Amino acid sequence: MAFEIIFLGTGAATPTLSRGLSAAVVNINETLCLFDCGEATQMQMLRFGVKKDRIRHVFISHLHGDHYFGLIGLLFTYHLHHRSNELHVWGPSLLKEILEIQIKTSVPNLCYPLIFHDIESLPDGTICSEKSFTVTKFPLKHRLPTYGYLIRETGRCGNIKKEFIKQYALDHETIKQIKEGADFITPEGKTIPHEEIVIPTRQHSFAWCSDTAYFPPLIEFISDADVLYHDATFMKDLQGLADEKGHSTTIDAALIASQARVHQLILGHISQRYMDLESFVKEAKSVFQNAEIAFDGMKIKLRN
Amino acid sequence: MAFEIIFLGTGAATPTLSRGLSAAVVNINETLCLFDCGEATQMQMLRFGVKKDRIRHVFISHLHGDHYFGLIGLLFTYHLHHRSNELHVWGPSLLKEILEIQIKTSVPNLCYPLIFHDIESLPDGTICSEKSFTVTKFPLKHRLPTYGYLIRETGRCGNIKKEFIKQYALDHETIKQIKEGADFITPEGKTIPHEEIVIPTRQHSFAWCSDTAYFPPLIEFISDADVLYHDATFMKDLQGLADEKGHSTTIDAALIASQARVHQLILGHISQRYMDLESFVKEAKSVFQNAEIAFDGMKIKLRN
Repeated sequence: MAFEIIFLGTGAATPTLSRGLSAAVVNINETLCLFDCGEATQMQMLRFGVKKDRIRHVFISHLHGDHYFGLIGLLFTYHLHHRSNELHVWGPSLLKEILEIQIKTSVPNLCYPLIFHDIESLPDGTICSEKSFTVTKFPLKHRLPTYGYLIRETGRCGNIKKEFIKQYALDHETIKQIKEGADFITPEGKTIPHEEIVIPTRQHSFAWCSDTAYFPPLIEFISDADVLYHDATFMKDLQGLADEKGHSTTIDAALIASQARVHQLILGHISQRYMDLESFVKEAKSVFQNAEIAFDGMKIKLRN
Repeated sequence: MAFEIIFLGTGAATPTLSRGLSAAVVNINETLCLFDCGEATQMQMLRFGVKKDRIRHVFISHLHGDHYFGLIGLLFTYHLHHRSNELHVWGPSLLKEILEIQIKTSVPNLCYPLIFHDIESLPDGTICSEKSFTVTKFPLKHRLPTYGYLIRETGRCGNIKKEFIKQYALDHETIKQIKEGADFITPEGKTIPHEEIVIPTRQHSFAWCSDTAYFPPLIEFISDADVLYHDATFMKDLQGLADEKGHSTTIDAALIASQARVHQLILGHISQRYMDLESFVKEAKSVFQNAEIAFDGMKIKLRN
């Protein structure tokens, strides 16, 4: 099963020639989820070869424009391209009103089902369950209500132990059933539990913590994630500014990564004031070694 | 006096890798006017070196998203960059509501004066007069209320006839006064009218007819313009589709250019179905010779 993350916009607040506005797409087995959708996200999708028609869910973190102004354009592009599949948009309740007024101004209805989910009315925890993944929502700490998301694969089965296949000369159909979660019954009628037959496998996961100050309560939701994208708008010397603006420093992000024992930290929402990215990433690495700075078009493929 | 047009987005409806969404900027003596503002217009400004802080007026033709979805992002970029100068936005009344709900969601107020002008409540004709130019508004024919704009230089004085300067040994101050519109009084007390001293000069003008079917009533408003940007979404063989969608063909655009006796026609709002642009422009030229296809980043400088 494929699990790929593509970062589409990695800058903070206003666009630059090198960094677009917040957005990342996760492809799990050719079903795509979009996290935030800053202005020109659809142009970034063209640029980086994202199959936008495969996006089934859009998760918006909060209503600062650099995280959602690109959504209305994407919705209309789908309409003009005659999309028929349903699209789920998850975000704060006011987002629905903002989208609706712009839709109604132009057309009676979009030509595809747009299903809006008010995340403010949903409890923290799993909000979305699909065949191959679940998405969990949790609070962040910013200047207005903001949410983080964790997307985790589900239902991915590990390989069956080779010696077991040999011992019982398993046929194709039986292997398929075990891979789908079945136990095995021996010719003698003894049940061997699924867990004893299969090599345990990791369910990949990705956490999107777009705009947030240092906020340890989020750790329980992202614990052990493969990849954490975390706000790192400033370096440590601007901690005061970070606190005031509800953003994180490199050190804040690295502390969260370390405390949550994630495998990889991607520093994002980078302020355009930083030209020297070497010292930027060095600062984060002083706390959490496996840290990298996001860039537009960065791709991460998770494999076993 | 400088009069420069830069086309920022020249495609139709949805973006492609080569064409952005509708927008053009006109620079008259370092005061800039923006015509339409499709998504990612602010990114195109970065790309093509437009001094966005010098934009004083934004004129929106109509409320199809490809003509205004980029405006809210630009307004917030100004806010985040601490703009202080006033900004005038001209557009249909619903645009105000759309902008306001998005502004209020995020901040109590923008940090600069945003002055909204409801173009639907203004009569056709001159709606905006500045020191160096005027802007005229007129109706187009599209699927929802849509307006065209003509921007024309004013107050530009031609050069004083050389023999006159010599004959009266004009000093610098007198030359300045005449250039500002004064008559000249000879040492003998005779008044020589301004018009007799100065070589007549052309007041440059540019017409923005973004989305419109063939609509001859607009001709009186754009007559003799230097440059006409006109909808040319389709070629002639798709006239039926053009009529249905409220757009123009190459021939429609060329007929308007010819009937209005403009100097130059720029074909815009180009559908992404056209790869063979040679036959596209050839078709327009069969009716109006001085026709060109717009491209993102195209610059036109008007000189005497």
